[in-house]
Amino acid sequence: MGGHMARNLLKKGYPVVAYDISQESLAALKKDGASVAGTPAEVAQGVTKLVSMLPASAEVQEVYAGKDGILSTVQKGTLLLDSSTIDPSVSQAMAVQAEARGAVFMDAPVSGGVNAARDGILTFMVGGPDGNFPEAKDLLANMGKNIVHCGAVGTGQAAKICNNMLLAISMVGTSEAMNLGIRLGLDPKLLASVLNTSSGRCWSSEVYNPVPGVVQGVPSGNDYQGGFGTALMMKDLGLAQNAAGSVKANTPLGAAVLQIYRTMVNHGFGGKDFSSAFLFLQEQEKSK
Amino acid sequence: MGGHMARNLLKKGYPVVAYDISQESLAALKKDGASVAGTPAEVAQGVTKLVSMLPASAEVQEVYAGKDGILSTVQKGTLLLDSSTIDPSVSQAMAVQAEARGAVFMDAPVSGGVNAARDGILTFMVGGPDGNFPEAKDLLANMGKNIVHCGAVGTGQAAKICNNMLLAISMVGTSEAMNLGIRLGLDPKLLASVLNTSSGRCWSSEVYNPVPGVVQGVPSGNDYQGGFGTALMMKDLGLAQNAAGSVKANTPLGAAVLQIYRTMVNHGFGGKDFSSAFLFLQEQEKSK
Amino acid sequence: MGGHMARNLLKKGYPVVAYDISQESLAALKKDGASVAGTPAEVAQGVTKLVSMLPASAEVQEVYAGKDGILSTVQKGTLLLDSSTIDPSVSQAMAVQAEARGAVFMDAPVSGGVNAARDGILTFMVGGPDGNFPEAKDLLANMGKNIVHCGAVGTGQAAKICNNMLLAISMVGTSEAMNLGIRLGLDPKLLASVLNTSSGRCWSSEVYNPVPGVVQGVPSGNDYQGGFGTALMMKDLGLAQNAAGSVKANTPLGAAVLQIYRTMVNHGFGGKDFSSAFLFLQEQEKSK
Amino acid sequence: MGGHMARNLLKKGYPVVAYDISQESLAALKKDGASVAGTPAEVAQGVTKLVSMLPASAEVQEVYAGKDGILSTVQKGTLLLDSSTIDPSVSQAMAVQAEARGAVFMDAPVSGGVNAARDGILTFMVGGPDGNFPEAKDLLANMGKNIVHCGAVGTGQAAKICNNMLLAISMVGTSEAMNLGIRLGLDPKLLASVLNTSSGRCWSSEVYNPVPGVVQGVPSGNDYQGGFGTALMMKDLGLAQNAAGSVKANTPLGAAVLQIYRTMVNHGFGGKDFSSAFLFLQEQEKSK
Repeated sequence: MGGHMARNLLKKGYPVVAYDISQESLAALKKDGASVAGTPAEVAQGVTKLVSMLPASAEVQEVYAGKDGILSTVQKGTLLLDSSTIDPSVSQAMAVQAEARGAVFMDAPVSGGVNAARDGILTFMVGGPDGNFPEAKDLLANMGKNIVHCGAVGTGQAAKICNNMLLAISMVGTSEAMNLGIRLGLDPKLLASVLNTSSGRCWSSEVYNPVPGVVQGVPSGNDYQGGFGTALMMKDLGLAQNAAGSVKANTPLGAAVLQIYRTMVNHGFGGKDFSSAFLFLQEQEKSK
Repeated sequence: MGGHMARNLLKKGYPVVAYDISQESLAALKKDGASVAGTPAEVAQGVTKLVSMLPASAEVQEVYAGKDGILSTVQKGTLLLDSSTIDPSVSQAMAVQAEARGAVFMDAPVSGGVNAARDGILTFMVGGPDGNFPEAKDLLANMGKNIVHCGAVGTGQAAKICNNMLLAISMVGTSEAMNLGIRLGLDPKLLASVLNTSSGRCWSSEVYNPVPGVVQGVPSGNDYQGGFGTALMMKDLGLAQNAAGSVKANTPLGAAVLQIYRTMVNHGFGGKDFSSAFLFLQEQEKSK
Repeated sequence: MGGHMARNLLKKGYPVVAYDISQESLAALKKDGASVAGTPAEVAQGVTKLVSMLPASAEVQEVYAGKDGILSTVQKGTLLLDSSTIDPSVSQAMAVQAEARGAVFMDAPVSGGVNAARDGILTFMVGGPDGNFPEAKDLLANMGKNIVHCGAVGTGQAAKICNNMLLAISMVGTSEAMNLGIRLGLDPKLLASVLNTSSGRCWSSEVYNPVPGVVQGVPSGNDYQGGFGTALMMKDLGLAQNAAGSVKANTPLGAAVLQIYRTMVNHGFGGKDFSSAFLFLQEQEKSK
Repeated sequence: MGGHMARNLLKKGYPVVAYDISQESLAALKKDGASVAGTPAEVAQGVTKLVSMLPASAEVQEVYAGKDGILSTVQKGTLLLDSSTIDPSVSQAMAVQAEARGAVFMDAPVSGGVNAARDGILTFMVGGPDGNFPEAKDLLANMGKNIVHCGAVGTGQAAKICNNMLLAISMVGTSEAMNLGIRLGLDPKLLASVLNTSSGRCWSSEVYNPVPGVVQGVPSGNDYQGGFGTALMMKDLGLAQNAAGSVKANTPLGAAVLQIYRTMVNHGFGGKDFSSAFLFLQEQEKSK
């Protein structure tokens, strides 16, 4: 993801100072025109706008607040945009520490996947001060086409995990409804068309149907390859549960769907697209 | 429902023989031009096409196969269309008994609610033999605008309960996501707009949002009055669970959402619209 | 089960008239001293006390109320004891029909399994009139050691399915707790001993622990062979959900545990002991 | 809790240096013979054995690793015993930091409640090095009667949260089974006796039955006053879910029961004993 984003900035003429733990990725970026740094701290020394894209909360804490981290050298007035999908409370903690050093930290998680990153058409959900949003939007617009200001720092993360929780619930719900209907004798395409012209309609039934052959060009038609992995969905559902716990929000289906995706990961579905919930559910009783 | 449907047939010039356990309803229909009968058997004696609309499986069994029931007097070649939402296996059993008497029973449950019944714009999901569908469609088209042939007898019910199970899952999922997001600091309208332009989008988030003020003209804006009652949704979710049990279909979220609606019914939400799931979930921790 | 029960009656000197759909089983019983009948109706013609043991509600309805069924020939005053585990409402319906013929039907489901049937130490949970219980107890005492009068007809079934629902919940709960603790670094025997001397203690943790090696002589130590099959537990949990629906009882964990056992059956665990829930849950994330 | 524990040490003749954020509590302890300190750091300066009892993970991090915290002044060789119920990974982190200062940190959460603390009969579940356990046991034996060494640091917490997760599951399971059985016509005491002589037996059904009147001297008989609060159970279930997430352990019922207790807290049950799950579930459908 990060590589595609950096290349889009380079294409638009921005000078880019890059850091990655993979020397290979760094070398490739250097070849495409970026300067490279040896640590996050070195990046921060040389820039006034910084974009980070990291796997999880622990890496964000390490890269920002750890040894040789961004916050150890960040210049006053720097705009820090973190596009990782992490716990909103970690985003908030980073913002407090950045402010203490005179910098501004905003969370800006994305939706759209690797292809959207490459094509510069990501959606960014941004949390942070009103006054800094225009500058953030100007920069992010080089990498995405839809830049939404969600509110104070952390609300970008909040919007992302609420969406993905509802997505997972709808996907498993669609898988359950399709599987039940098929077992009751319905043709999958006919059932999908009934749902999609009625109140059961959702993105998962309409655009990304989990039953092979119902919609063209989606992972269900390609043995659940590509798309958004079950293990990544499990991670986002874990973030949703942590956030729900912190505000005591009741999420019975959100909790159930995390367990379903965890079962799937434990039973070997981690690398398949998250629509493989249908594959898991449609398993038939085996003969004794 | 049944009264509206009968009136639409009368308006289109059909002679109607009516029966209802409510003498009041029957008298009103008589005033509007229907003949009235004293029992279901009396209705069946005088017609070659019959439409029934009943509360649940037990009533369908009673009205068709009970004492003074339709099947005791039904004429050969009669087309029996049952618009009740019931267990598909009961529809199948009625079809077998009807066939033994030379009649054809088709299930034809509806979606659309009381207003759609009045306006003649119901959707009918029809299960039964291919050869009888055209005749069924001709009659039902006087009461609805969308007549879908789903397959063999029982598949109309199957389509209806699959849709409503997915609807309930999406509605509770939307309620959980909206409630979580609001507690995390998001504005409800902004969150809904993020969901609706992203992969969390569903009919419940877009058309019938459960948070007051997000969408105009829906029950959430009117103290959850009107719409589709929580107790009725609980009934349909029970049918879905029975059907799932009969074919051993795995429905973890379908099972969970039935329990949620049952909790709501037990705690006084039975008469409110089913989008009141949000109201139930957003309850805040009370001070000690 | 039924064969063992009949043999215990024969051993105590009772004359037995037997019927089974398996000719082999019937022939074996004949060899052991029973008379055999060609239909349930024939059995009923010749006895004043009758015990039935059948797989499910449908078979009970067929054998009692179907063609050549018990109720077609039952003599006035006959005591009918049904030891099948079925829907309490079916027991109640049979009792009504039996009463119309001057006979008394009581439900008397068992706990204890095949070995307890062989050894004549079953527990019988009996539902039916107070006045008939002493006679029922006298007969059942030849096949079991613990004969409990639970109340009106149907309450024997109710007690059985409540017990088995709680058993399944405790078993899956024990499996989850043991699996979590082991992954967190606890020794299984030490964890079991902590649970069993504390408030987590239950029959499943103490007597029938699902983790191999913790308790001796239980199915978990023998590759989950023998014991009480996952498919049978799934059946009983389905009865519990039907009963819960009929009285609108909220059973969130009961509903969840049915789905877990159904997933297990669909994934090939149907023939293993129900403590194999641990085996299903402890599956580790596979490498990509 | 902490006050009772300190008093038991004083009674046994130990000199105690105490700190609490409540000046009132501190003054009371002083009256009973303790020295008092102004900060955790002051306590650590003066002792070689230290016992802490705190509400949650955040307080443990603050009191040990925060400003004026224990680790800022702790002497080499000091034994630190933390009896708080917290995230095992926080216990492990504290142990690493303590080791860096030459001290030994062990987790030692308790079961038994306020009365057991007062009477010195707590159970301590201890995690930490084998070599330090004897010394820990000698000290803890003044405050409890059952001191269990569970393994490496963090395993005391693991044992506690596994027990409490299974306890909550059993309690809600017992509540569901009792409620279902009662609605199906069973007498509560008779049903409890069936469960308790059968495989559904658990601590919650036998010792602490949630239905008023079944067992004497428990909170259910006293309007669910006293005992172990629903809000505290919710906290422990949240710790269990965090721990399960960290090791990817599947806990479908553990996740469901957290949501149930959260619903209860949000609907005003937070201050009642956790057996009030029965009260929440037995709510009857209200008349329209």
